[in-house]
Order: sequence, then C-alpha cells, then structure tokens
Amino acid sequence: NSLLFRRGLASLKPAQSLFAPLDTFPERHIGPDDAEASKMLSQLGYESIDDFVAATVPPKIRVASNSVDNTSIPTFSESQLHARAKELAGQNKPFKSYIGMGYHCAVVPPVILRNVMENPAWYTPYTPYQPEIAQGRLESLVNFQTMVTSLTSMDIANASLLDEATAAAEGMVMAFVSARNKHTFVVDSGVLPQTVAVLLTRAKGFGIKVVVGDVAALLKDEATRSDVCGVLVQYPDVNGNVKDFRVLAEITHSLGALVVCATDLLALTKILPPGEWGADIVVGNSARFGVPAGYGGPHAAFFAVTDKLKRKMPGRLIGRSRDTQGNPAYRLSLQTREQHIRREKATSNICTSQALLANMAAMYAVYHGADGLQRIATKVHKFTQVFKNTVEALGYKAINDTFFDTVTLDVSAVATAEAVHTKAIAAGINLRRIDDKHVGVTLDESVSPEDLVALLNVFSSTASAQPVALASLSEPQSSNIPATLQRISEYLPHPVFNKHHSETEMLRYINHLASKDLGLIHSMIPLGSCTMKLNSTSSMIPLTWPEFSSVHPFAPYDQVQGYHKVIKELEDDLCKITGFAAASLQPNSGAAGEYAGLSVIRAYHESRGEGHRDICLIPLSAHGTNPASAAMAGLKVVPIKVHNDGNLDLEDLTAKAEKHKDNLAAFMITYPSTFGVFESGVQDACKIIHDNGGQVYLDGANLNAQIGLTNPATCGGDVCHMNLHKTFAIPHGGGGPGVGPICVSEHLAPFLPSHPAMPVRGEQSINAVAAAPFGSASINLISWAYIKMLGGSGLVQSSKIALLNANYMASRLQDHYVLRYKNENGRVAHELLIDLAEFDKAAGLKVTDFAKRLQDFGFHPPTCSWPIQTCMLIEPTESESLEELDRFCDAMITIRKEAEDIITGKQPKDNNLLKNAPHPMSIIASSQWNRPYTREQAAYPLPWLREKKFWPTVSRIDDAYGDLHLICDCPSVEEMAHRD
Amino acid sequence: NSLLFRRGLASLKPAQSLFAPLDTFPERHIGPDDAEASKMLSQLGYESIDDFVAATVPPKIRVASNSVDNTSIPTFSESQLHARAKELAGQNKPFKSYIGMGYHCAVVPPVILRNVMENPAWYTPYTPYQPEIAQGRLESLVNFQTMVTSLTSMDIANASLLDEATAAAEGMVMAFVSARNKHTFVVDSGVLPQTVAVLLTRAKGFGIKVVVGDVAALLKDEATRSDVCGVLVQYPDVNGNVKDFRVLAEITHSLGALVVCATDLLALTKILPPGEWGADIVVGNSARFGVPAGYGGPHAAFFAVTDKLKRKMPGRLIGRSRDTQGNPAYRLSLQTREQHIRREKATSNICTSQALLANMAAMYAVYHGADGLQRIATKVHKFTQVFKNTVEALGYKAINDTFFDTVTLDVSAVATAEAVHTKAIAAGINLRRIDDKHVGVTLDESVSPEDLVALLNVFSSTASAQPVALASLSEPQSSNIPATLQRISEYLPHPVFNKHHSETEMLRYINHLASKDLGLIHSMIPLGSCTMKLNSTSSMIPLTWPEFSSVHPFAPYDQVQGYHKVIKELEDDLCKITGFAAASLQPNSGAAGEYAGLSVIRAYHESRGEGHRDICLIPLSAHGTNPASAAMAGLKVVPIKVHNDGNLDLEDLTAKAEKHKDNLAAFMITYPSTFGVFESGVQDACKIIHDNGGQVYLDGANLNAQIGLTNPATCGGDVCHMNLHKTFAIPHGGGGPGVGPICVSEHLAPFLPSHPAMPVRGEQSINAVAAAPFGSASINLISWAYIKMLGGSGLVQSSKIALLNANYMASRLQDHYVLRYKNENGRVAHELLIDLAEFDKAAGLKVTDFAKRLQDFGFHPPTCSWPIQTCMLIEPTESESLEELDRFCDAMITIRKEAEDIITGKQPKDNNLLKNAPHPMSIIASSQWNRPYTREQAAYPLPWLREKKFWPTVSRIDDAYGDLHLICDCPSVEEMAHRD
Ligand SMILES: Cc1ncc(COP(=O)(O)O)c(C=O)c1O
Ligand SMILES: Cc1ncc(COP(=O)(O)O)c(C=O)c1O
Ligand SMILES: O=C([O-])O
Repeated sequence: NSLLFRRGLASLKPAQSLFAPLDTFPERHIGPDDAEASKMLSQLGYESIDDFVAATVPPKIRVASNSVDNTSIPTFSESQLHARAKELAGQNKPFKSYIGMGYHCAVVPPVILRNVMENPAWYTPYTPYQPEIAQGRLESLVNFQTMVTSLTSMDIANASLLDEATAAAEGMVMAFVSARNKHTFVVDSGVLPQTVAVLLTRAKGFGIKVVVGDVAALLKDEATRSDVCGVLVQYPDVNGNVKDFRVLAEITHSLGALVVCATDLLALTKILPPGEWGADIVVGNSARFGVPAGYGGPHAAFFAVTDKLKRKMPGRLIGRSRDTQGNPAYRLSLQTREQHIRREKATSNICTSQALLANMAAMYAVYHGADGLQRIATKVHKFTQVFKNTVEALGYKAINDTFFDTVTLDVSAVATAEAVHTKAIAAGINLRRIDDKHVGVTLDESVSPEDLVALLNVFSSTASAQPVALASLSEPQSSNIPATLQRISEYLPHPVFNKHHSETEMLRYINHLASKDLGLIHSMIPLGSCTMKLNSTSSMIPLTWPEFSSVHPFAPYDQVQGYHKVIKELEDDLCKITGFAAASLQPNSGAAGEYAGLSVIRAYHESRGEGHRDICLIPLSAHGTNPASAAMAGLKVVPIKVHNDGNLDLEDLTAKAEKHKDNLAAFMITYPSTFGVFESGVQDACKIIHDNGGQVYLDGANLNAQIGLTNPATCGGDVCHMNLHKTFAIPHGGGGPGVGPICVSEHLAPFLPSHPAMPVRGEQSINAVAAAPFGSASINLISWAYIKMLGGSGLVQSSKIALLNANYMASRLQDHYVLRYKNENGRVAHELLIDLAEFDKAAGLKVTDFAKRLQDFGFHPPTCSWPIQTCMLIEPTESESLEELDRFCDAMITIRKEAEDIITGKQPKDNNLLKNAPHPMSIIASSQWNRPYTREQAAYPLPWLREKKFWPTVSRIDDAYGDLHLICDCPSVEEMAHRD
Repeated sequence: NSLLFRRGLASLKPAQSLFAPLDTFPERHIGPDDAEASKMLSQLGYESIDDFVAATVPPKIRVASNSVDNTSIPTFSESQLHARAKELAGQNKPFKSYIGMGYHCAVVPPVILRNVMENPAWYTPYTPYQPEIAQGRLESLVNFQTMVTSLTSMDIANASLLDEATAAAEGMVMAFVSARNKHTFVVDSGVLPQTVAVLLTRAKGFGIKVVVGDVAALLKDEATRSDVCGVLVQYPDVNGNVKDFRVLAEITHSLGALVVCATDLLALTKILPPGEWGADIVVGNSARFGVPAGYGGPHAAFFAVTDKLKRKMPGRLIGRSRDTQGNPAYRLSLQTREQHIRREKATSNICTSQALLANMAAMYAVYHGADGLQRIATKVHKFTQVFKNTVEALGYKAINDTFFDTVTLDVSAVATAEAVHTKAIAAGINLRRIDDKHVGVTLDESVSPEDLVALLNVFSSTASAQPVALASLSEPQSSNIPATLQRISEYLPHPVFNKHHSETEMLRYINHLASKDLGLIHSMIPLGSCTMKLNSTSSMIPLTWPEFSSVHPFAPYDQVQGYHKVIKELEDDLCKITGFAAASLQPNSGAAGEYAGLSVIRAYHESRGEGHRDICLIPLSAHGTNPASAAMAGLKVVPIKVHNDGNLDLEDLTAKAEKHKDNLAAFMITYPSTFGVFESGVQDACKIIHDNGGQVYLDGANLNAQIGLTNPATCGGDVCHMNLHKTFAIPHGGGGPGVGPICVSEHLAPFLPSHPAMPVRGEQSINAVAAAPFGSASINLISWAYIKMLGGSGLVQSSKIALLNANYMASRLQDHYVLRYKNENGRVAHELLIDLAEFDKAAGLKVTDFAKRLQDFGFHPPTCSWPIQTCMLIEPTESESLEELDRFCDAMITIRKEAEDIITGKQPKDNNLLKNAPHPMSIIASSQWNRPYTREQAAYPLPWLREKKFWPTVSRIDDAYGDLHLICDCPSVEEMAHRD
C-alpha cells in the first residue's frame, strides 16, 4: 500500500500471510527496523546483513543456517505464548504447602507486587556500579542490610546472596579461611538437607571435611576438636526445634572456630537473635518477607557477620559515604574484596546476586514495620501451637516441644506416614515427607483459619475422628519458645521502618526511590559483557501468576507438570543454541554456572581415574569470576597471555598446556572474548587443550553474539554456562536475579548436578550447587518465553543486529576515540572496546571522568576499566534503535570535544565539565557558580536533553571515604532528627 | 509487647483475635494511625474522635451508628477480597464474542497494559487543570485528538467523551443548537440500537423529535425536510454495510442541517473517511484500539467536527500553547465553553470523561502506527471475507455484500437462528441475536485462525456439513469495500506515530510522558470536591483479569453471573450508605448521574400527571454540571442565593419554592455544600421543596464526609448520585474514567434507567442514559472491592478521618489565611475554603499565583477559584498522613510569607516568586538570572525539597495565546524537523 509509505520512519512490515499472527515479537524486540538496518549496513559498506556477518564472524566457526531456525525452534506470537503459558500454568496443581524446609508461601503486599516486582523501573536497572544514578535501590538495599542486622543482632550484613544453601557454603569457607589449616566443618543434623548437599559439593574444592551429626556430641571427639574450623547450626532447626546454642558457641570459640547459624527472619522477631548468643556468621533466606516461592526462586539469601569479619564478607555490601557536596550518598563498599579484583585469590565467586528480591523483602519490612512483623509472627506461632495441641489430642505425638512454626510428628500411634500423606494429597495439601513414621508441618503467614481447619482435618480423618471445627479451637496462652530463648531486644527502630505503613505512603516511598534510578525505561545501558536488552512485558506476565509463583520447590513432580515442560523445553532450546547435549538449570548466576561446570569437569576426570588433574588455564583477559570459580572448584589457575589486539596468545597457551599436560584439567575461555573479539583461533586453542587431556569451559556471557552464527560446541567447548539474565532477557533487577545454566557435551552429561529433592539422581552426578533443584525456577519462564517468541529466526536475527549495532557504533566512534580492536575486515563483535589512556596522559582525565560525564547526558556509562583499566566496553544489544545509538554516539563525541578543550587548556584541568561530573540538580540550582562553564553546558550539552533529561541525584561520591568510614545501616531516629 | 513501642512513630495495631486476618485494609487505606489521629484531636481540643464528629456534623442529621457497620457491610481482608474476586471471576464464562454492535475484544499490547493501565503514574492523576505538571498526559491526549482527526479526516477532535451513544447525543444537540428552531433529528435504521435509545432519552429534554428509519427515504418527506436539524448515520452500519453517504450529505446540507456520523476507527484505515464525504460531526468508540471490553466500559468515545463548529464542541479539548519562555506547552483549551462556566446555558454537562482510556487508545496507535493499523485492518477484513465466502458456500445468505468486519446472515435456508445460536453457545461462542432468521457476526483483531475455524464450524455443523479445515480456506483477492469508498488519503504521518514501534522505544515513551506528570504517587492532590484518595492495588488487580476485562456488554446474563453479583452487592451497599432503596450503575460520570437522576424525577412527575413540572432550584454555589444537567433534562433553572458563610439562603429558597410551586420539579443541592459546609438547615430546605411538590436531588460529590454519620436520605433527598471516582476510590485516570451511579427512594425506583440489552425492562423506566447497560461496568469492581475491604466500620472511620484531616489543616492554616467558613464550633467539613482576595487587593496576587507557586513545592494545587473566584478549596481525604498534611501546610505558610514580602515591598510586585511560578528546571539552569531572589529560594524553599522534589516541566502557560491560536494536533514531520 504505497500511500502508507512512512517517509523513512520506522514502520511495521505487512503480514507474511493471511493466517500469520500480527503480534509477532521479533519486530518489537529488535530496535532497528529494516530501513534502519539498511542505513547502518550501507554506512558500513555492506549490501546485506549476511555479507556483514560474513565479514564479522570467522568462517571457520560458522554453523549451518538450520542449526537454529524456525524448524528447530518454532515461533510463538505474543498472544500464542500467553495462551501456551496459561495452558502450562493449568498443569501446575495449586496445592497448599506445609513442607517448610526453608520455603514458605509468602504473602506479597499488593503495593509491592505491582510497584516493585512488576515495575520495569525496579527490574530493568543493572547492579548499582554508578551510584549517582542508583541512589534509590542503594537506599533500599541498605534497608535490606539494616533489616538483617537488626533482626539477627549482627554488626553488618551484605546486600544478598543467591540462596540459603550457598550462603551457608560461603559461611563455611569464611570459617575455613579464618581458621587456617583446620579442615573440619561440623554441621548439625538439624540443618536443611539441601544446605548439607551444597556444603558437600562446595567442601570438595577447598578440601574441607564436612561432618554431619549432633554438633555437641561431635565436638567431644578429639580429632574433630583439633581440626574444626567452624560449625553450622539451623535455628530453629529443620524439625522445628528452637535450641539453645549458647554453650555450643562458647565451646566452638574456645576451639578457635566460628559459629555459622542458618536462621529465619520471621522467627527472629520472637527468638533470641544469634548475634546475642555468639554466632559469628548468620545466614538465611529472606523469601518469606513477601517474595513468591516460585518453585524455588529467585529470592534473596542474607549474610551477616560480626564486625571483625566484615572486610572478608562475600557479596556486595552497600555503604553510606558522601558526595562532593558533603551530602550522604550510598555506594557499593569494599569492592576490592570482590572476585573481579581478587581473581583466583578470591574465596567467593559471587557476582550477580539477588538485588530485586532483597528490595522486595526490604520493602516488606518497611511496609509492616516491627509491629507488623510481630503480629505476623504471633499469628504463625499461635496457629502452629493450635495445630500441635489439636493433633496431639488426636493421638499424634510431636517430637519437638519447642518451636516457632514447625512441628514434626510421630504419627505411628495413629497411622503410617503414608496414610497421612494420602489424606493430605486428597485434600490438596502437601506435608513434609520424612520417613514412614514422621511427618513435618510448617505454617506460614498465608495460612487462613479455614486452611488450618482443613489441615487439621487431614489428621482427624486419618485418625477416624470427628472433623475439627474452627469454633472449637482456642487461643494458646503460653508460648512454645523457651523462656530463655525469647527475644527481648528491640528491632527495626529506624524511621524508615516506621512511617510507610499506609499504602499511600508506601507507594510514594517506592516511587520516590525508583525516581532516582536510571533503568532501561530511560535510555540504553550499554554495559559491555552485560547485554542489557529489552525485558519484554509478555515474558514477565506469567511470572506472577499464582500457578507459577506460589509453588514450593519440593512439591511432588506430578503437581508441577507445567513447570517441568517449561524446564524441558528451555533445556532443549539451550542445547540447540549451544550445540550441546544436556543442560542443568540449577545454577542461579553466571558465576554459579562456572563453578558447576568446572565441578562437572572435575567429576568427569575423576570418573576416568584422573582426579589429579587440577590445572586450569585462564586468559588474563578473563572475567574475575573465572579464576575465582576455578579456585573454588579446587583448581590451580595458570594465566595465559593475551595479545594487545585482544587475541589469545596461542604460543603461550600451547606452552602452558604442554607443560601441564599431566595435570591439565581445564581451559576457560570467553567467546567472543572479553575484548569483543571473535578469535579465529578458538578451535585451535581448544584442540591444544583436548590434545593435552583437558576439557574446555566456555564462558557464555557473550552468547548474544553467537546464536545461529556459531556456537560453543563448534568453537570447541565441552561445557558452557549461559547468563539467562544477559542473552535470554531476564531483567537484571538492579543486581540480580540471574540464572546461569550450563550445557554440556554428551560425555559430561552424566555428571550434571543432582539435588536431594530430585526423585531420580544420576549415579555420577555432582551434588547440588544450589538450594533448589531448578535454582531460580520461576524466572526460567522469562527466557523460555523469550526464546519461544523470537523463534529460531528471531534469535538469529537478534544476534545479527546485536553485531550490527555494535559495529555501527564503532564506525561512528572510531574517528573520535581509539578503538582497541577490530578484525582484518574492520569489524568488532557485539561490543566494542575504546581506550581512553591518551586523555589521562594529556590531561589527567580518567575513564571515570568520561563515565560520570555520560550521566549528565542521561546515559548509563558503559563497563568501565574492564577488561582493560583504561578502557570502556560498549555493548548496545539488538534492542536499541538507530536513534538511540546515535544519541549515545553524539553524547560520546560531545564529551570528546569537551575533553579537547581541557587538553588544549581552554578549560582548566581540575575544574571542568568532566572532573566535576555528574551535575545533579542541587548543583545546577546553586547560586554559587564559580565554574569556567555555564549551567546550561553542564546540564544541557545537547539539545534533546531539554526535552528528556535524567538527573543524577547526588554529585560524585567519595569512594575512599566510604570504605574508611564503613556505615551500612540506614539512618537511626537520632540521626534523622539531627538531619531535619 | 511494650518493648516494641515505636516511639510515637506510625505502627500497626496488634491483631484483634487469633483468627482475625492481618492484611486488613482500613489501616492501609487511612493515612493517620491512632497516634497521629490522637495528636490531631488534641490539637483541635477534643478527647475523642466521636466528640470531634459531634461538633462537626449537625446532630439533627446524624444517623444511627448501625446504619453502616460491620454487620450491614462485613469486612474482607485484602486476601479474602482477592479470593472472593477470583471466585466471582470464575462465575463469568469466557465466551468468544462475535456480537459486534460497537464492542470488540481488543488486543491490549502488554507494554501498554502494564505501563499505562496498571501503572499508578498514569491512573492516579487528576484532570490536567494544572498543565505545567501534566505535560505528559496532555501530550498523549493530543495524540488521541490527532489520531481521531487523522483517521476521520476531520479538522478537530476533543479529548474523549463517555461512550459512543452519549457522543452521538452530543452531536444531535449540537445539530439542534446550530440549526435553531428545527426540531427533527433523523436517525438511520443502521444506527446501533443502544445509540438510538440514548438519543431518545436525551431528545426529550431538548424537545427534539427523533425519527428512525431509512434516512434517504425520510428526507423525502416534506415535513421532515423543513424541520430537520441533523441526521445520524452509522458507517459501517450495525449490519455491516458500508454505504455511500455523499449524496445524503449534500441533501442534508442543502436543508441547512448537519450530518453526524458514527464510525469505527479501524474501519477508517480502509474506508473513505467521513471528513472526505461531508460529515460535520463524527463520533465513535475508540475501545478496539487496545482497551478491554470490560462488560461495557470504560472506554473513550471520540468526537470530531469541522473547523467551523470547533468552538461549540462539548468536552475537553487539549491545545498547544506556549509557556513564558516561548516553549511549546499543552493545556486545556477553550474552557469557557465548559459547563462550569456556562452553567444552565451549557448544552452539554460533560465534565469527567475518559482520559485514561483515550491515552490507552492513543498509545495503541503510537505503538502500531499507520502500517500496523493497516495490517490489523487487513486481517480483520480478510477474515470476515473468508467467513462470508465459506458460510455462503454452506447455504447461508449474507444480506450485506459490502462490509469491513461485519456480516449479517439470513440463515433461514439452512436453519432457524435459534438453531445457530444453540450450536454457537455449545461451542462457547456468542453471535449477535437479531430475529429468528438473521444472525450477525463481527470479527476483530483477537480472532485467531483457530477461532475462525471454530466459528465456521458452528455454521457447518448447523448445516450438517463436513467440518471446515483451516487448510481449505483461501485468501480472498478482492475487497468487499466498494471501490468508490476505499480510503486513499494518508493517515497518521506524524512522527510520534512512526517511531515508537519497538517495545523498548514504546516503554521509554510511556515512561517519559509519565515522568512529567504529578500524581498520587508523588504527593497529596488536595483538590476540593474531587476526593483524591488512595486507589488501592488490591482493588485494581481484578480489573485486568480476563474474566472481567474481556466480556462483551451484551453477553447473555447467564454468562456473567460473577459480574452480576458484583453489581448487585455494590448497588446494595450504596443503598445502605445513602439510605435509599434502589440504585442504577448505568451513568458513567457524576454529571451523567445528575442527568439520569433529574430524568427519573421528571418521569416520576409525568407518571403522576405532573409532567408540566419543569422548574429546578439550584443554589448559586452549585457545581456547573448541576444547572447544565438540569437544562439538558428540560428543566428551567432558578438560582437560589447563598449566604456569605456558605449556607443556603432559606428565605430565598422558600420564596422561590412557593412562587414556583405549581411547576416546581426539583431542587438540587450538594451536601456538604460546595463551600465545605454541613448546612444544619438541609432538612428544612428539603421539606420546603417537598411541601411545594418538588423532589430533592442531592449531588453526592461530597459523600465522603457523610458515610455512617449522615446520609442523603436522612438529609431529605429523594435521589442522589455518587462519584465512585471520588468517594469510592476509582482512580481519576488523569480525567476519567468515572462512574456516577444514582440511588433513589422507593417511589422513584420504578423509573431507573433501562437499556435495550437488559432482558427485563421496567414499564416506567426511563430509556438508556449510556451505551452499556451497566455503564463502565468493569471499574465497578474497584468500588465494590473498596467497600468490601473497608467494611462498615472502615467506611465510617474513613469519613471521620477525612473530616479530621480537613479540620486539622484548617486549624493550621487559619492563622495565615482567611478561612471562609466554619460552623459554630469552629469546624469545617471534609474540605476547607480559604479566601485569597486580600492578596489581590494588597499586591495584585491572584489565586493562580499561589497555585503555581505550590507546584514548586511538589504539590498539586487545590481546586482554584471555585466555588468562589478568589478562593482555594482544599480537600485532603482520609488517605493522607499527618506528615503529608503538615508538609502541605508548611508549603502554604511559606508561600504566605513570600506573599508578605511582596506586600511589604521587599520583593517587587511583578517579578517575584509567586508571579514567576512555577520554576521548571530549564529556568533554574539558565545562566541568565535577573530575579530578586535566588535559585535556591525558587527551587528549594523548604528543606525536604532537596530530598524529594517534583519538577514542573514548563513554566507558566499562556492561556490566551492558546485559545487564540488553537492547535490541537501533534507536531507534523515538518514541524519536528524544524525543531531539531
Ligand atoms: C564474561 C563474564 N563471565 C562471568 C560473569 C559472571 O556472571 P554472573 O554475574 O551472572 O555471576 C560475567 C558477569 O558480568 C561476565 O561478564
Ligand atoms: C459538586 C460536584 N458535582 C458534580 C460533579 C461532576 O462529576 P463528574 O466530573 O463525575 O461528571 C463534580 C465534579 O467535580 C462536583 O464536584
Ligand atoms: O471537575 C470539576 O469541574 O470540578
């Protein structure tokens, strides 16, 4: 219809055929339309996208065009996907769960559900590496930290870990490292089985000996006493007991070991906090604070320590520092502890964690406050008491008399456990399966009086007794928490937890914080290696349907058929994309995937009697998680050199591989490399490794450059992880959640991780690497939907446009900045590395100065000083339109001119637009203005900023001050009073 | 638990009993907690809230405390409400509808669903009376207007009306008024029956004679020719026909009459637009552009006219003007046409319209653009062709050969219509019921190939033929739109419709516009008479469940049992609250309620042979809609004086009532009055009316002051409307939707509105007042949920706290401003009126200057210059916390001091903080600063603004310029190019 020709503006293509759906996702997902793509191609000098790809991706590694296409991965339109998701949702049975074991049915306050979890302002930002445009979620994460320290009575807490089990493992390693040369870690038999499984896995790499049993008894054993580095207790324990660990803590300390305590935040409103009885490290799961169970995750684990351990804590820690104006400002503290700095010397590889879920939990505490939490805990405890009293009257016997929310019953006087479970299942209820005599019951906030009666009637009918009526239940007067273990200390007195209790106030607080943060809702976030692409609404919607969100991770498989179809389909599609044979979705971050993959490699070697292979070759350009993960898996890291142009030094590789051939376990490589390089020698490199008995681990962070063009198997890998939160469109959530599944070749498949809750366990499987059998299961839905809606051709087109967008930017920027790398055809991969070293030399301008100045243009800076100190790594992804690419390039080019003025002396070196950046409103609005540039130059350097400007809310933050004066709690009553 | 005492900060109360739910809504809805309420009470000098209420509400009118309590209206907790809503949702059967008749199953793009419809940033603002803090939705409404003018090819369009039927009625009245002394309005038989019904109702008041039939034939009748003021055609018509009305338009114009055309926006992408064949007024429903059907509404009707009619258009019109800096800025244009100015001389009473839904429709057009709409229309048309061709091959006969999306079949050759419907119902399909031979079928965007096959198989199985297979269907090659009626003109060439087609771009555009607007997510909106309270998430969630959102308004009752329970329960609760006997939810705004209520009164008089009663007494202080509605109902307005203190002049009332006693129809009164006065003489006033044969209409805009304390029946009324979008928490949506149900006494119940789609029609009922039988049915869910979750005691407590909050503010402000009214105890009602006249006298400072300055403090100004020119009317509602009330009072008091400096000459009269307000960032950031105050004083007059500041995006807008240079479209390609 020629009259409708849009004069070169963006437009949608006509339908392919009468019956083709119109709500096709690729055209909504991919930023540039055909006209824009053509424009970019012709600017780069190519006739077609295929010519361009041919010049960009080395021919040697290309895969057949049918490896990923609409036959192998058929396309669903948005509404078809919605219908399919509904169908699968209907295949999950909504049983009421009393399984407990660390997982609960959380009640999500609707205001938080809608305005945090379902709000792109909260879920699209990245980890707050740029604190001036992230004060909102930084404040919220400090609320999380404060909530944890206050409830646990510990000195300091981090901003979340992946799950309780891995948090406990981090605690174990901290104890191990602190104790030096003591190798035994004692785990109480009351600890959750999934935690024990993860500890066993993790202990291996560090050579820690885990012993499980009655801790007090075990600590009487002399061999243990002399070798113990730490103990782990569960408080309350898996059976519900609330035990007094004071004496245990004293004994442990007297042995020079640390006490790690896994606990429950809601119980802590009632029971003596671990910080008051001597725990050194306290971990747990914050999900019952308003985070849906989601068949296992995501949710935020917490990790708190005493003051003396604070500088060794794993994970991200938010602290309060000050900006150049002296105003309080939040930032990531103590980053020097992190894996990206410490590499193989790091004892933790944690990178992406669970920011969004930590924020939800923190908001839950803000909304309820101490009194609200107290009344929830009171209800849960009293309901549990009513439960116990009533079933005991029916003849069942509780094996624990102290408890907060969990009762373990010996049912044998009445019936078999199986008989109880049968009645429960018939009533749509899941109980904890223990053995043939014992049944566990855990209550939570979601249990209504009617639910309680239905639960009781499972037991009354099993006992052939009269049904229980609500009216017959009476309120218990005493508590089942021992008097000596009752909490008396105050918690959450801070103003933030005591003023947002009306929905209006809460909504405004949530919105106010969100308004300080830059996310994908504002502009591109061209963070190299992070792949910040569209997180589509269609893929987000099913997540919060109750059929997916409220499923317990240990629910019987026959109740979660819908989930298992999603898991199976996603695994299959990931295998098609990577060229591998099998997948595991258990690892809940990229780094966790690395660790899992390397553990699989180790198990493979062991299975062949080559358990001694422990050398891991890693290029110097690798992401810091690689060496950290290798070290955690018990591998010794041998670095491989990298050429100046980004390519691997194959000679060095050959030399090291041959040198270590008897002990070579693995080679870790990122492809395209972290320099944004499609190395043409990748297959040769892998062959060298294989020839010397090693396995190749491919870090798939950059998979977005590969789909349908090449794949990790073709490149020569044996295993790879993917970051579903990068390539497969799970939103970054401001620093998590993530999913880091691994795919492996046929020969490695038998070793993929198992889990105590999996019905069938492979004989050769490594043990669990995460608390839940399918990790952060619910968000797999996002990647599943993403893949299904793009279909094979959309996936491949996305990769092609990701490459095109990056190359277009490179071509615009290379006249102004030093482009570190391009291939023989002048092409970069899906990201580009520019080097700013010259500006430091010429005028003392650092990468940070450029980054902060970009904030004034409303952009999130690219990845800074990684993988090269003096560089910026820019990754646009396929979702950005040509207009947005141009806006960013215009900003960069404008800053280049501003830098020129500084170099030539037009502007002073110490007081200029870059050094003073960013410029928040408070500075612009100040009457004082003794700067050699105007306010307009500071705030509106390009005309479109007048229409659309995102304002940083603080000026540049003082990092050193923050690390020196470590404050990680939110302001107290006194401090707030002082501020007003 | 004393240790948990929160040091006077907000806290939640302990549970009332073990089995009481904890997620109780009143404590989340009501801003001040007990401690804050006590503080306010003691400041006002009362021991208890009941003492306070006793001093505030006149004892004479108080109702028994059990009139509204937890027995009459039991309380549901948030999760209980959720469960109940789910249960009722399950009672609506999700049939696929092909009923058509102006309603479709819209496909809502998920990015719009989540980020507009479900986003409080979009749904909580008020009508954009303060354009400097509303540029986002003003731009979007201009997009709506542009979309309408472009698709209809008309010159100018307004920013929405309530529904197609009332829009057609407005068109009829415009034709009537334009023609002068011609009384016949000719309606084509192809017009939708619900439109005809509404026209018949509306015609009455104006004395218009509506004749329905074949227009061409009717216009041959000489009597008609000489008296015709206008004609109405449906294009395409109800049966699907696309007729050529060019000749008709010529004839109509030659008779000095206007052509009103009701049309369909999607069809207009294919058919010759009415503006190109001579229509003068074009109306229709924009809902199929991505607005859920919702069992009838809400959705936005559109209304477009030729240039010469533009200054007479009803409804709100957004125009582009400029601000003090000369920048383009949007605002409400031509407000002088509106009812609040023209009162009984207005020909329309439209006030609240459908802003949120207009914005959704506009965003849909932005997302799809011309090409996207074209391919949707192509699919719909071709599917309809396939349908027709296939069923004709089965022996059915289409009575129309021209069509866009609708085919009417004569089925008699094959079966009875009933037989077809029976098969359809069995297949979960609704078809249009016409008569025993004819069946109507309308297709829309939501119809998938599978749906089409299922539809066809209803017809094949009725014909005992083989089932139709998708593969057997072939694509029609020609069009069923006559060649001469095909559209050839371009549409939507404007840049805004041609660049936001990727989801990322769309999301950013939606977010960018939202970021310019102040809503309840930011701060209180203390608009007197508007009752801007919390719109809770829990009440919003069920709205977008498909069981509620995708129901056709003419679906058979047995498929909508869930809806009918909601409707019944809501009607019952409203009756309990008002003290009346029966209710109608049909009116879809407050003004529509007024009109409906007055029409009911007229019908009542007529039924008693007193149809001549046509005098309506209305106080001068009444809202402008009151006299406008009275005039529309054919009543003559006689104004009643009001004392200076806000009280009705009872003497004047008595005199006028007696003078007009033979013709007295009604008295309209707002209670508490628009001055915020609980008039103690209200019952006396009503008695005077009743004694003189009149009925009392109570405008319930201020019902929030009354619940459980008094009620309209007790005050002496016979009928009242409520604004569910005020008292009952439907969000204002930036200018609609609203619901204006009426409640009536027993004797008026038989006259409540009927509707052609209601199975049982009362014999004495007035005809329809809205297009759908239950008006904007879906949003009734919000008020239903609100009432259920507060329960009786929560509703009463809300009213009490609404009074307390207003009185607290009055007590703080009265030392600084003239409080126009308080009762003998010093109390105001739920709002307060302050008079700023002194400042004009002393220093030329107008109400507007104070209002604009309030924007600099991040507040939406109160209602300005209404009901008194020199006043501000301030209404906090119960949802605002003490802290927020104080923030607002502090702002007002600060401005008072700034005014003092102007009065005393410390600041010049023409260049000062008030006259120059508001101060957008662009002004603050300007290097030029020749103002006698600092930037900080302008931007941060109070310290908390440094932490939380909402910025107006433009400076004060030039109203006169805008009205003079009326531009109501969005910028064109050329203009945008020029700007860049
Ligand atoms: C190359 C590379 N490898 C590994 C990781 C770690 O992934 P995650 O943050 O999901 O743990 C990253 C994260 O940015 C990365 O860029
Ligand atoms: C007193 C009064 N009456 C009637 C109305 C009209 O209601 P609506 O805008 O819903 O048509 C209003 C609106 O503000 C009002 O304040
Ligand atoms: O909306 C009002 O006109 O009050």
